[in-house]
Amino acid sequence: MKIGVLGAGQLGRMLALAGIPLGHSFRFFDPTPEPPASDIAEHVCAHYTDHEALKRFAAGLDLVTFEFENVSSEAVAFLSDLVPVRPGIQALQVTQERFSEKDCFSSLGIPTAPYVKLSENFSETERWTRLCELGFPFILKTRRFGYDGKGQMVVRDASSAKEVHAFCEGKDILAESLQPFTRELSLLLVRSLDGVARYYPLVENVHREGILRSSRCPPAFLPHTYQGDAESYGLRIAEHLQYVGVIAIEFFDVDGKLVANEMAPRVHNSGHWTIEGAVCSQFENHVRAITGAPLGVTSLIGWSLMANLIGYEPNMQQVLAVPGAHLHWYGKVPRPGRKVGHATLVLKTEEEREKRAPELLRACADPLR
Amino acid sequence: MKIGVLGAGQLGRMLALAGIPLGHSFRFFDPTPEPPASDIAEHVCAHYTDHEALKRFAAGLDLVTFEFENVSSEAVAFLSDLVPVRPGIQALQVTQERFSEKDCFSSLGIPTAPYVKLSENFSETERWTRLCELGFPFILKTRRFGYDGKGQMVVRDASSAKEVHAFCEGKDILAESLQPFTRELSLLLVRSLDGVARYYPLVENVHREGILRSSRCPPAFLPHTYQGDAESYGLRIAEHLQYVGVIAIEFFDVDGKLVANEMAPRVHNSGHWTIEGAVCSQFENHVRAITGAPLGVTSLIGWSLMANLIGYEPNMQQVLAVPGAHLHWYGKVPRPGRKVGHATLVLKTEEEREKRAPELLRACADPLR
Repeated sequence: MKIGVLGAGQLGRMLALAGIPLGHSFRFFDPTPEPPASDIAEHVCAHYTDHEALKRFAAGLDLVTFEFENVSSEAVAFLSDLVPVRPGIQALQVTQERFSEKDCFSSLGIPTAPYVKLSENFSETERWTRLCELGFPFILKTRRFGYDGKGQMVVRDASSAKEVHAFCEGKDILAESLQPFTRELSLLLVRSLDGVARYYPLVENVHREGILRSSRCPPAFLPHTYQGDAESYGLRIAEHLQYVGVIAIEFFDVDGKLVANEMAPRVHNSGHWTIEGAVCSQFENHVRAITGAPLGVTSLIGWSLMANLIGYEPNMQQVLAVPGAHLHWYGKVPRPGRKVGHATLVLKTEEEREKRAPELLRACADPLR
Repeated sequence: MKIGVLGAGQLGRMLALAGIPLGHSFRFFDPTPEPPASDIAEHVCAHYTDHEALKRFAAGLDLVTFEFENVSSEAVAFLSDLVPVRPGIQALQVTQERFSEKDCFSSLGIPTAPYVKLSENFSETERWTRLCELGFPFILKTRRFGYDGKGQMVVRDASSAKEVHAFCEGKDILAESLQPFTRELSLLLVRSLDGVARYYPLVENVHREGILRSSRCPPAFLPHTYQGDAESYGLRIAEHLQYVGVIAIEFFDVDGKLVANEMAPRVHNSGHWTIEGAVCSQFENHVRAITGAPLGVTSLIGWSLMANLIGYEPNMQQVLAVPGAHLHWYGKVPRPGRKVGHATLVLKTEEEREKRAPELLRACADPLR
């Protein structure tokens, strides 16, 4: 099939690298000149508001998917009239802004941090009243286009009132109680066109400065209820959204239970280890799902560790010299905080993984940070 | 690096799919319009004799490799003056014609079937005398451009004299004693720019009509001397040729010992299982070797079975429905005897592999043959 992808970053590139061996071809739409996926497939370089470009993009495609959810739903609605879009516009609309995302968790009975929605029209008093009801500490997040810690502010006590109002001014804001979590876990699931869901084992993620640094699957330890709980929550969401493809749901691990934080209607950085660490990767499974093929097996090859390469170009020879390391360099110019690659190790035992982890993390870490 | 590849078939495509994540980009040279690799990289479409096209191809490349050894050595010599070619022209010259290939085995003390070289200038009497000295049964192979059973003739006894002379007329021919082999095994090895060699475990191959149908690694059983012998032979060849990259050596299993049959100075069909079945695939290791990177780990993930898709388009959904199956479709139009794809299963045990093998082989087999 000829598959169109909105967004041509590394996720799109890895989708194409997984889909090409299945016999598919790809075309990307991205306003950025020379994005990572453009070196292996057609690239329509235009803004998402450009209907003529969207038409050109859609011509001859069998279906469209996305690797980036912050596409205007107007563009997706326009495309949906021309070609099937999977996952559909509903999944996009619910997950691309935080009010509907949180309401989705709540309405489906999925534990999530207490929250209040602050309208851009609120007066300072109204806003402050709501925040005091929620209680300190809390985190403020812009309703739209939040990504990787941008557009967020942590508030510990009332002394920051002035900064809070400055942050919220003129924007819809979600305020959430800060969770005393011990770690972050994510679930990747894939749902087929005919409604079959498969789940990868939960992943443990380490963030710093709001950016994912490393993922481990399986995690070091996992209460026996977690995988089942996560799958139950995931299935509720996927069925509610009539979802097709891979979806990622991020959880906090709080006092022995999972609290849903966010979700992404796409392949996800915390699933990059699946390329080498699972029988069928998240990328191949997303392609299988949206093309109506049978889903691939989500079980593990071993104990995986994925380390992101962020903001700088490492000594590639050093990464490649780590025995068993798989390097994925996205072909991007490094800039502070920018994900430019990742590397994965898959080991036979947990002990071996933890013994080998420092070597990979050291080879991948920016020595200046 | 920017890597040029002579030949743009499926081997070239899989090289690019393995090399792109390492940060490399690719350009292909192939006289065929729209070859498999042309959908993911630049393609210079011209004949190997076209020096202007070769110059255009070489411009800006860091190095050149090949996925197809039957390129005229004149073209490679021309390129070698412009850009490093790895493996070098010596490896190509020795392996692209059968006289020097057999002489290479013999001179390095590697067991190979007894053979005679028949010059195109021989009279019928001279030819027949040599063949009678060799003894029946034997196989005739054209000296050059033999591939997948084309240009071969098996001769059982003297009754075929007329056909033998017709086959040999006007060509240099290698005649080899037919070996009473029980199976075919192959060794894939990779040698780095600084002379380090790594070996994959021996692969058992099933051919029919001169075309590889399936490969298993590890084989069902293996006398304990085989791996060591194969590695010793492989190392002699690789060092003799000052080889850089992946080389494949095919052996017959004859009376408890390995007899070298042929070699290919490139990634090889009998190593396709390494994509999912080894820590680092033959494709990635070839790219690592020619770019001067540390070699990847060649150890096994499990028990692999690779089945070729030959001459027809299977029901892709059926192949994808085999649990754990990895499909590689090359995007070629099926024609009789043409390799158009392959599929691989990697299982945890030998028993599981043999239990699951019929399902994969059935899904991949042409039901009309």
